[in-house]
Amino acid sequence: MSTVTNRLYRLRSRPTGEVTADNLEWTEESVPEISRGQALIRTHYLSVDPTNRVWMSDMRSYIPPVELDAVMRGAGVGQVVASLREDLPVGAHVVGLTGWQDYCVADAAREDLPFTVLPDPLPAPLPAFVGVLGHTGISAYLGVEFGDPKPGETMLVSAAAGAVGSIAGQLAKRRGARVVGIAGGAEKCRYVVGKLGFDACVDRRADDWRTQLDLATPQGIDVDFENVGGEIMDHVLGRLNVGARITLCGLISEYNDYDGTDTQHGLRNVSQLLMQRAQLRGFIVFDHVDRYAEIIGQLSHDLSQGALISEDTVVSGLENARDTLNRSIAGEYRGKVVVKVVD
Amino acid sequence: MSTVTNRLYRLRSRPTGEVTADNLEWTEESVPEISRGQALIRTHYLSVDPTNRVWMSDMRSYIPPVELDAVMRGAGVGQVVASLREDLPVGAHVVGLTGWQDYCVADAAREDLPFTVLPDPLPAPLPAFVGVLGHTGISAYLGVEFGDPKPGETMLVSAAAGAVGSIAGQLAKRRGARVVGIAGGAEKCRYVVGKLGFDACVDRRADDWRTQLDLATPQGIDVDFENVGGEIMDHVLGRLNVGARITLCGLISEYNDYDGTDTQHGLRNVSQLLMQRAQLRGFIVFDHVDRYAEIIGQLSHDLSQGALISEDTVVSGLENARDTLNRSIAGEYRGKVVVKVVD
Repeated sequence: MSTVTNRLYRLRSRPTGEVTADNLEWTEESVPEISRGQALIRTHYLSVDPTNRVWMSDMRSYIPPVELDAVMRGAGVGQVVASLREDLPVGAHVVGLTGWQDYCVADAAREDLPFTVLPDPLPAPLPAFVGVLGHTGISAYLGVEFGDPKPGETMLVSAAAGAVGSIAGQLAKRRGARVVGIAGGAEKCRYVVGKLGFDACVDRRADDWRTQLDLATPQGIDVDFENVGGEIMDHVLGRLNVGARITLCGLISEYNDYDGTDTQHGLRNVSQLLMQRAQLRGFIVFDHVDRYAEIIGQLSHDLSQGALISEDTVVSGLENARDTLNRSIAGEYRGKVVVKVVD
Repeated sequence: MSTVTNRLYRLRSRPTGEVTADNLEWTEESVPEISRGQALIRTHYLSVDPTNRVWMSDMRSYIPPVELDAVMRGAGVGQVVASLREDLPVGAHVVGLTGWQDYCVADAAREDLPFTVLPDPLPAPLPAFVGVLGHTGISAYLGVEFGDPKPGETMLVSAAAGAVGSIAGQLAKRRGARVVGIAGGAEKCRYVVGKLGFDACVDRRADDWRTQLDLATPQGIDVDFENVGGEIMDHVLGRLNVGARITLCGLISEYNDYDGTDTQHGLRNVSQLLMQRAQLRGFIVFDHVDRYAEIIGQLSHDLSQGALISEDTVVSGLENARDTLNRSIAGEYRGKVVVKVVD
């Protein structure tokens, strides 16, 4: 292996705003040797998630920030290419925190960095295991469960064309709820309604998005599946019905703004949480590992029955991961975004 | 009765900021005549609550705003002085929405304006029935129940010297929680710790209130009994522990700011609700009328045993009600604030 290089990103400084090449250095190193209790994983697909941006900041978060000079943290799917671990045989496909690199070491002693072996043969394409059958699909499932939209109720989904929102809306639709999405651009909105089956979708890039949102939610909003935050969420708060539930899954609009001071937009319309006696629940999928198997089983079943549509955006080349993250946060993609690392 | 006048306040315009004499006109009218199914109530004590300020605005709220030119809405305790209702005999003490006036008509047909007859003899002084044994005490009880502070956990109470906060903190203390208050001024803080038995109290008027709050919550914050909002709540959000509960009872700091535009401070630190997987619940006491009897029974018992301390601020003269509300929102009083209407 010594002639093969490991291409990777190291976090050299904490970004403000978009992630630059100075923040996240693209470099080449030698592939690590493995020792007893370790396996070497070749990354096939890297998962690109807005929450990666949180990990680069020193915001108080659900996970420690990536340390400066460390390899960038990231989820990925790959294959075992060398192994001194019986539970990770060579050739096995695995999912775990591969990091933003070609090769990583899966060390049995690192309980904080587990790798899960995928079924053989694979029941779905590899990217699905960081998407609809991975942490984004599970987030969608859990968030809908927490928000509990009932038949006839209206659930709003922000970032509706995204990895989590696209699944969440479909799950809520099957519960009999009216589902209204918010997405960036007319094309995404057509996709959300025409392909994913939402009842309506509001184009947040249109000047009249507030009016669109009002017209699309004539009976108000009972559940807000919140992925974005900021001024859109503020407007949503103004349309909550009494007893509304907010399932707080992400705050994408805030991630680039945090610099340790008071610069985040936050929310102005907080009083509506009181006035409408709303319940808000923040959740992080990694707290619910005990539910993964059950939920993946359910989502796999739905997928195989054609009852759930999941489309991935695949960007080729690990060298494009940083740019892909910036574009993802800017809302340029739809569905789950992965970087294809191996041709 | 025709020679007696009814002194009252009518809402002439919606305030921005403090309530002025132009917004809320102080005037005299004749005492209304009663007809079949009606009783005349003489107000003895008017309850002054920050939420009165909400009722003057046209903010989307839990109750319709007071209509322009109508008598100002308000809770009060009084006595039946004339009656054509069997359920409200002359001489009975009652609690209900008397309005900001000397006399009101209790009409059996107005199901939205019920009056409750108090026990005879009275088990507590009259003001208690709009305070610790009324909507503020019940709010404290419900909010602590929702927040569910456990032994060893830390509960933070903003407006800790106020009608709701002072009771909430005592109830949480008896559950075995560490209870930290926030109040305005050193004297109030001494009262909150020395008299009410909180573990600590932070003076929000001190320059170093953030440091005080950090030092007073070395183990972080598990429950936030929130009455105030704004920058204090923002700082509290930054100290939430994983799984924290926020019981959103009031947002006093916002009530003077609302003018229909985006001027409210709101919250910047919303991301911590997600990062700490917090649960927030807004509640309004009036949704829980079915619990009133049980809760009043419990609070009465605690009071009679000396297990609960409640001190009222009594301001004499209905003509001082408007000024008293402004001062109450500014945090100038402690305990339940009532205006004594009858000498």
